[in-house]
Order: sequence, then structure tokens, then C-alpha cells
Amino acid sequence: MPTELTGTSFIGFSRSAGTAPCGQAVNPASGEKLSPQYMTATSEEVEKAMSLAAGAFPAYSNLPGSARAGFLRAIADKIEASVEDIAVRGPQETGLPEGRMRGETGRTTGQLRLFATLLEEGSWVDARIERAQPDRQPVPKPDLRSMLRPLGPVAVFCASNFPLAFSVAGGDTASALASGCPVVVIAHSSHPGIAEIVGNAVIAAAKETGMPQGVFSLLYGGGRTVGQAVVKHPVIQAVGFTGSRGAGTALMASAAARPQPIPVYAEMSSVNPLVILPGALTRGETALAEGYYGSLTLGGGQFCTNPGLVFLPEAQGDEFIAHLKTLVEGGQPATLLNASICEAYKEATASFAGKPGVETLAKCTTESGHGQGAPVVFTVSIKDFLENEDLQAELFGPGSLIVRGSVAEIETAIAKLEGQLTATVQGTDEELTANAQLVTALQQRAGRLIFNNFPTGVEVCSSMVHGGPFPATSDGRNTSVGTMAIYRFCRPVSWQNFPDAGLPAELQESNPLGIKRMG
Amino acid sequence: MPTELTGTSFIGFSRSAGTAPCGQAVNPASGEKLSPQYMTATSEEVEKAMSLAAGAFPAYSNLPGSARAGFLRAIADKIEASVEDIAVRGPQETGLPEGRMRGETGRTTGQLRLFATLLEEGSWVDARIERAQPDRQPVPKPDLRSMLRPLGPVAVFCASNFPLAFSVAGGDTASALASGCPVVVIAHSSHPGIAEIVGNAVIAAAKETGMPQGVFSLLYGGGRTVGQAVVKHPVIQAVGFTGSRGAGTALMASAAARPQPIPVYAEMSSVNPLVILPGALTRGETALAEGYYGSLTLGGGQFCTNPGLVFLPEAQGDEFIAHLKTLVEGGQPATLLNASICEAYKEATASFAGKPGVETLAKCTTESGHGQGAPVVFTVSIKDFLENEDLQAELFGPGSLIVRGSVAEIETAIAKLEGQLTATVQGTDEELTANAQLVTALQQRAGRLIFNNFPTGVEVCSSMVHGGPFPATSDGRNTSVGTMAIYRFCRPVSWQNFPDAGLPAELQESNPLGIKRMG
Repeated sequence: MPTELTGTSFIGFSRSAGTAPCGQAVNPASGEKLSPQYMTATSEEVEKAMSLAAGAFPAYSNLPGSARAGFLRAIADKIEASVEDIAVRGPQETGLPEGRMRGETGRTTGQLRLFATLLEEGSWVDARIERAQPDRQPVPKPDLRSMLRPLGPVAVFCASNFPLAFSVAGGDTASALASGCPVVVIAHSSHPGIAEIVGNAVIAAAKETGMPQGVFSLLYGGGRTVGQAVVKHPVIQAVGFTGSRGAGTALMASAAARPQPIPVYAEMSSVNPLVILPGALTRGETALAEGYYGSLTLGGGQFCTNPGLVFLPEAQGDEFIAHLKTLVEGGQPATLLNASICEAYKEATASFAGKPGVETLAKCTTESGHGQGAPVVFTVSIKDFLENEDLQAELFGPGSLIVRGSVAEIETAIAKLEGQLTATVQGTDEELTANAQLVTALQQRAGRLIFNNFPTGVEVCSSMVHGGPFPATSDGRNTSVGTMAIYRFCRPVSWQNFPDAGLPAELQESNPLGIKRMG
Repeated sequence: MPTELTGTSFIGFSRSAGTAPCGQAVNPASGEKLSPQYMTATSEEVEKAMSLAAGAFPAYSNLPGSARAGFLRAIADKIEASVEDIAVRGPQETGLPEGRMRGETGRTTGQLRLFATLLEEGSWVDARIERAQPDRQPVPKPDLRSMLRPLGPVAVFCASNFPLAFSVAGGDTASALASGCPVVVIAHSSHPGIAEIVGNAVIAAAKETGMPQGVFSLLYGGGRTVGQAVVKHPVIQAVGFTGSRGAGTALMASAAARPQPIPVYAEMSSVNPLVILPGALTRGETALAEGYYGSLTLGGGQFCTNPGLVFLPEAQGDEFIAHLKTLVEGGQPATLLNASICEAYKEATASFAGKPGVETLAKCTTESGHGQGAPVVFTVSIKDFLENEDLQAELFGPGSLIVRGSVAEIETAIAKLEGQLTATVQGTDEELTANAQLVTALQQRAGRLIFNNFPTGVEVCSSMVHGGPFPATSDGRNTSVGTMAIYRFCRPVSWQNFPDAGLPAELQESNPLGIKRMG
């Protein structure tokens, strides 16, 4: 039986009444409005969600990791049980195909279970033990034990481009809940229905596993009103966000201006440079063009790791260029996530086409339907690229820019690039060694370096870094994908000279949890 | 032979000419000016230091950990070789006794060698390896390997209260150099001579161990001019600071307002609450008063972890109070670090004495000499404490406030406290268990919890957390003391599908460094 959508916020275990409408979802493929009308959470309801989160924090953060793991597994189970609802509502709200919705559901439940496994194993807390040396000269050494503890309630903003994996119960929520932080989610106006389906799953899991009320709330209302109120609220201790650079830097400014500044983990914009070295062309220009075109157009080109900037040696790669042209011209326009993203993509590609030295290499010949964006590839010389910083801007959609120059010029251009989520090199092993300086320059600007793969496809695992220097993210010291994401919501705490009974289990002398510890 | 002091900055391996004087050190005990005159680094010299640091970064960050360890050990050796100079100049510049100067020199060289040992062992980089699974369905799993890499050049501000351990080659510099970041130090106007002695040691060590020029510079000039220019410079990627809340929050604002915001690790103000439970009084009120008085007055009360706020059950502890009164009245004034700290201490204690409900319990009866601050203890009821947030302000010097109330009232008051470096409980094991909520409330507000010890005496080890929620520090997710301090200057980077020859040694298949790795 499909979940009934009510259009109201989740304030802990209660549903909000709301008083003012904040809009309906719109099918981007048709422009059709979808029921129900969603209602803005009132200031009183926001306040109530905050007070419930603060109240839940001491109990929730002191639960054993295994109990939090049980909660995460229950969320995954409940989401899985709602997959048919997601498969129906998802495509209507996002224009993404049903298969993608099912796949992303699997990614989301996989993430939740990965964090559950991390908690069950338990060693992630980085327990460190240095025992007392009462006879040390000139002063005795005290017993000192440290481990990571959660920061406090976390605000999570849903992303437009991953309505499940980076939204209500996505990576930010999973890692924050895993760390021991209650979460207050702010829904995205593009897919409020998917948010409600997943919100129901989280609340059902919280009740079933006996979590304190306030461990989770889900608020509807504008990001600039409800969202800003949440970020400025003294209860909130960190923020997770995936979206545009404008919205991300606005959140950073609000968080820095609080009486108590808090960390904002904003994953913003990245053009994910891809450097083609001559050896990659020798290996096969057609296959390279096909691989590149596939990565560029995956998910309508709306992935954070979309390779929007290619460096190609000049006077080489004619076949790569020719085949890419054929693929782009014969390709299909994609329904973009919402009307404003579609509009922004059309404006950005039109503006690119008019910039000095920029030529349109290829444009999809099929006419775009309602809400669609068409694949397009521009070219420019390194010289013109370096003279116009605007050309580093992200084309959010299936558009890209190919920059032509010598390998030496490419190295110079890389030194001028902003921070990136990823940087890719296509070439031979020998070229990787011969161009060590170029690779070092890329490493200094990116969170993930890729060799002879494409950047889309972000593996959820212990060694993934989905982060990178500003403006790729607000804070390049972290990742928002993979198990290391949990560290964003923690801080280390030391206990000095405490008896065993006063210590967390992780630090007790007998190591009752059997975790790996230092010392 | 004593080091000759020239009064000029270290711009990489060169000495600056300077053009404008920025002042001489002043002996706080006498008001006497000390030679030489120090010269402000010019904007050109600042720019040169920045460009040298940027140039040194790729080479320095790619050195093996063992080479950086050799550099740190050489710095420690050179500082040790200058200890007689420090023992002469130190007390003149700071009013601190010679023994403290020798002890702090040992702490500083010990810190440097501790980080060297960490690098030599090598596992600190958190290497994580997930191997490819080419046959995985529905998509192959790529080879993904991650480890920590340094952020880039770091600015370090010297602290007034630790002219060695938190200054030119102190904890911030040692941990940043260990991580692979070049360091630009801004000297403190109170102890420019100690800075120059240590600066000479660092440069001699850099030359001896073949470090790239620009790995270290030391600049003289005002924190608000030269310091701000450095923090705003695009080359700088992080800032280390220990000092006042006003100066620390100004640096945070500057760093957040940069086109590329950067992290500021500012260790600022903390009153380090100490909760006395009845069992501690039963154990011995006189000894408790002596322990407390010793911690309060150590180093003239100018330690970051000075216990400036005591919660004492009302209608108990008469003997503790009486003995503390005797100790304070019969104590000695201390020469404070400089004239402005002395002035601020006098103003703050005078202001405390006049606040509603505040009574002066005891004041040192010996008259203060030039530049001295006298021990003083105030008392106030919980009710008045809660009505006046100003009473949470730090008295930087040997002054403290005792707050009286019931244990239940103390718990309420703790929930209103700002973030702290430390929180101490004195009591019995049974009281620790019985007051779990109070301990949880303290844990949520502090970086280090102490039981039946005093907070002064910060052990330099792997499990020390010298940090805590704002405003104790700018960023409570870190520590500035102990080996975990290195993590402040790093970010994780992933390598996907790289051949062994393109990987850092830490991630190569054969594990040539023999470090602990995940996977």
C-alpha cells in the first residue's frame, strides 16, 4: 500500500500542523504540479524540533554503538520496504528514471548499513590510552585516555541531485546519526514527497528501536527562512549541505557569524579537471571519447563529479574530437532536476558560447523538450582559458569545456585552478611518472586523484575521499562519502585519572568492546 | 658564546633589512627596555616569505617522513644548544624564573622529538587500502587508497604565556612542520629576543638537514599589521594561534572573509571549572586547598588551564575556605608577563569585586611591586552567578571565583557554561557514578575531563586533548597539544586506480615503510 503523503513536517515523533503553504513538487518533465501541498514549519515548530534534539543528545550520544547501529539498520530496512513508493514518486519529482531511483535507494541503504558495521566493530572512535607513571621524574605522569565524541545536534540540507543518497537519510544524516548526533533535516523543495517517504521510514525505525524522541526531525519550508533559522539556532553544532556555491557560502557566512561559530560541511562546485596525456590517445581515441561522453552525460550531467573540464594536447586527438562530436550531436537531451536548474544550464551554456576564444565543438541535434538540457561541448585555447576566470565555472548539466595546449601549458593552467573534488589523468604509467610535477599540482587541488578511470561513480568505502579544497567544499579537511565522513561530527575528549566505572566502555581497562586501541 | 641579537626577521634563509622599528622588549619586573630595537618586516619581505613558503611546499611535503623527522630533531638539538642564552634572556623578557625557562625549553625539545618519533613510525597518515574487485556486480570496484596530506603553508602566532612551548618552535610549529607544511611565524612583541634565539636554531637546523628555503620564516611587526597581512595572504592555508579571545576571534573573522576561507586554530579563553563534591572535602579540606592554590598560582596564574572557577557545595567546606584564605593572604604577588596583561588583570579583579553579590574572600597581603599581580579569590552564590554572564570571564592571572550552591544548582549552572579546555571533578568514585548527568554536562563543554587532579600540567602525549568547544578554542574538533595536533594541518586524499609507481610509499602494495594500514 503506498505511503500517504500529508505535506507536513516531522517534529520529533509528531507531525506539524503548519499554517502557510510552501509549495508543491513539480514534475520537471511536464511542468505538472504534484499533490500534496507542503506546509512551512512554523517558528514554534522549528523551536520544538531544536529543543527535542537538544533533549535527545545526552541519551542518544551515550548509547552503545551497537544500539545506534540497530537504528541505522532499521532505517535501511524501512526505506527498502518503501522502495516501490520511491520508484513511483521519485521519477515524477526529479525526472530521473525509475532504475536510477531503485539504484540510489540501494546506495542509501548500503551507506546506512556500512555505518552500522563501522559502529558494531567500534574501533572508529580512535581510543588512545596512556597509563599513569606515578614514579616519573620530575613529575608523575597521569593516566590519560581519549576518544572521539559527537559534537551535538546537526542540521542536514537535502541535495537536489541525489534525492536519496544525499538527502533525508543520505550520507550526511547516516554519518551524523552514526557519530551520536541527533539530526534535523531541511527538505528540498524539488522532492518533498521522496523526503516524506524517507522521513516516515526514519521515524518508524526510531520508534521501533527505542530511540529518544528528537533524534530526528524533518522540516519543510524555504532554505533561506527555515534553513537559516535552523543554522543560526544555538542548539545546532554542525551543518551538512550539498548544493550550489552561492547557497553553500551563504550558510558558511551565517555559521561563522553566530555567537558560537560552528562548522559547515558544504559540498559545492567542482569542474573535475581531466588531463589527457598523449599515451591515452595512442591507446584508443574512440574508446576514450566514449568513456568520456558516458561520464559527462551520466545522470543528466548533474553529478558533483561530472568531468566538465578537459585538458587535451593541441594538434593531437583529432579522432577523439571527431568521435566526441558524433556522440554529442547524436545524443539525447536529458530532463534536468527542476526548472531553475534547467534555466541556469541554458543561460550558462549560452553565456559560455559567447566568451572570447570559445568555440562550440558540438551540440546535440535533437531539440530539447520541456525541462530538458542538451549535451554540448566547447573548446578554447589555454591562453584564452587563463585570461578568463569565468571559464572555470561549473556548467551544471551535460556541458563541458575542452582546453587545448601543450603539456607544459596544461601544467601552468592547473596551477591556476580552484579546489576540486576530483582530478583525473588519462595516460600511460610512464607518463604518470614523467609528469610527477603535474600530478603533484593536481593533488594539491583535489580530494581524489583518478588514473585511467572517469570521476563519476563515487565508491562508498573506507578509503573514499569525496571532498577537496574550497570551493569544491567549504572545508577540504573532510569527506562526505565513505566511512571517514563520520569524523566531521566528532571531537576528541580526554579523561584524566578517571576510575574505570567513570569511563566510556571504549576506554575501560578490560576493553570490554574488544576494539582496536592505541596503547 | 651568547647568540647576538640583531632585531630583524628571518625571510627564509636571509635576514630582513626592515625599515621601521616595531619596539623593544621590556623587562616586566623593572620596566627596563632591552636591546636590540626590533624592525617591522616590510610588505616586500612578507611577500618574499610567502613566495618562499609556496615554493618550498611541493618539495617539503613530498619528503619522506624520516627526512622531516631529521629536521625536527635537528631543531631540538639546536634549541638545546642555546639553552644558556634562553636562560639569560627569557627571565628578562617574561618575568618568569630561570628554572621555568629551562623546563619549558625541555618541554619544547621534547615536543619536537615526539613528532619526530611519530613521523619515523609513520602510521599516523591513516593509510587505507581497498583493492579493486573487477568482477563485482553491477559495476566493478576500483582500487582506492587514501592517506592524509598536508594543507599548505601555515601561519603560527607566538603566545605571550609560553615563549617557547607555544611560540617559534612550539606545538603549532612542530605539528605543522611534521605534517609537511612550511611555517611562517609571527613573533610576539613581549619576547622578541627568545624568538630570535629559537629562529636561529630553526634556520641552522633547516640548512644542516638540507630543507628547502622557505620551509620556515619568522616575522617581526604588529599582529594587527604583519599578522593580518599573513593571515589574508592566499599562500597561507591554516593558522595556529594561542592568545586572547579578542585577538583570536579577529583572526577567525579575517580567515572566514578571505576569498578562500581557511581554518584558524585559536586557543583562546577558558576558566576551567572545578567541581568540588562533598566526598573531596571529607578526604581532606586542607590538602584540597593547598592543591588548588598551587594550581591557581602556577606560572603567575597565566596558564590556559588555570582553574579560575570553582563550584563548592554551600554550607560545607569551611576548613577548605579558611585554609585557602590563609594561603592567599600569605602568598606572594607574581610578576606578570607584560604591562598590558598586568593592567588587564588589575582592572578585571577590581571590576569583579564590584559586581552584584560578589565578595572578596581573600587577597594577598603583600603589596604588589612593579608589574606584579596579586592572588585573589572571590565568592558568589549560584543565583548571582547565573544572573551575570560577565562572571564567566577569564581573570588572566592568579585570581579565581568560588561559586556556592547545592549540587543540583551546580548542575544547572554547568549547563550554562561556555566551552572550556578542561573541567575537573574532585570527589569519590561513588560520587562520580552518582553524578553521571553532571559529568556528561561537563564532557559536553570541555576537551579534557579531570578527576582528583588539577588542570594545570598538560601532558604532551598521544591521548592529550588540549582543545574544547568555542570560545575555549575556535574549533573544538582539535587539540593543540600532543600528537593528535598534527591532524589540524592535514586533509585526506584518495588515489583511484593508480599504479604502484605513482603512489606515495605509504600506499604502495608492498608497504615499503612497514606502517600500520587499514585493508
